Amino acid sequence: MHAMAVESFVMMLRNLLGILAKGEAHARAKGFDPAVLVNARLAPDMFPLFRQVQFVCHGAEDCAARLMGQDAPRPDAGEETLEALKERITRAIARLEAAPAAAFEGAEDREISVPLRDDLVLELKGLAFLKDWAIPQFYFHLVTAYDILRHNGVELGKPDYVAGLASAIRKRGGGGTQE
Amino acid sequence: MHAMAVESFVMMLRNLLGILAKGEAHARAKGFDPAVLVNARLAPDMFPLFRQVQFVCHGAEDCAARLMGQDAPRPDAGEETLEALKERITRAIARLEAAPAAAFEGAEDREISVPLRDDLVLELKGLAFLKDWAIPQFYFHLVTAYDILRHNGVELGKPDYVAGLASAIRKRGGGGTQE
Repeated sequence: MHAMAVESFVMMLRNLLGILAKGEAHARAKGFDPAVLVNARLAPDMFPLFRQVQFVCHGAEDCAARLMGQDAPRPDAGEETLEALKERITRAIARLEAAPAAAFEGAEDREISVPLRDDLVLELKGLAFLKDWAIPQFYFHLVTAYDILRHNGVELGKPDYVAGLASAIRKRGGGGTQE
Repeated sequence: MHAMAVESFVMMLRNLLGILAKGEAHARAKGFDPAVLVNARLAPDMFPLFRQVQFVCHGAEDCAARLMGQDAPRPDAGEETLEALKERITRAIARLEAAPAAAFEGAEDREISVPLRDDLVLELKGLAFLKDWAIPQFYFHLVTAYDILRHNGVELGKPDYVAGLASAIRKRGGGGTQE
């Protein structure tokens, strides 16, 4: 549970920092204000990039807190600059890294109750909460942030999305099979 | 491992069927060919919807096969219609559901080797492969498929994305706390 809810989220949040850095570099190279990207959307009634990034960070922290049996953190509020978003991600990484693996023992059976809109509540055991709610939500906002930048011309690719795996990628050995 | 790699992927694939159905209904209501959506992209050099859906399906099947120690399935090829995509998703669900949970025992320690482009290979243990590669890739293509439709005016929302959780959502009890 700790590996899924903390280690992977931290790796992906670091990748997101790199993705935002490419967005910033693109704006500077083209001579426009990075705030344009920070406020860009894929549809008029979808959240802009800064809100997507806030949801990614909050979702990861919320997931870890609930699995550890702690109070859920408050959602982010207010508009954001690119600098603030980078600090926000760095803060989320630090908070996740401070969560001890031992605090997740037995988390898969913990009863989790997430308040939703309209007086509704989502009730799941820890494992289902993680795999069917927290992970899908985390990636929803992370990939949408990527897609907003990609749609706006930032030259991103899969290597940026999985940058944290670089150390696990090797050149195939001489005479190895071709697949 | 089975819960993460099969149960959740199956739930999300079913949600994707519902998302595509909304896209099809939108096209019919507006009087345009659903093939326009099937071939829509978020950027000129990103894959279109049909390829994103193929990647979602193939990624889920590939993940399950590798974790069970089976040969990886061949990637999808060819262009696709909306009908073919629905069949493709249904086929992926059936294949995943046919994978017995017992076949995933010990999968977290299995050595996984994924050939990449340019003679590179990704080498990870099963747990890292699942959480840092297969899950991020699965959601990358699933969310991008959603984003393509949303960007093109299909009225999708989070309830469509997590439709499979409907049975876990309840009305809060009388006198319950407001959060």
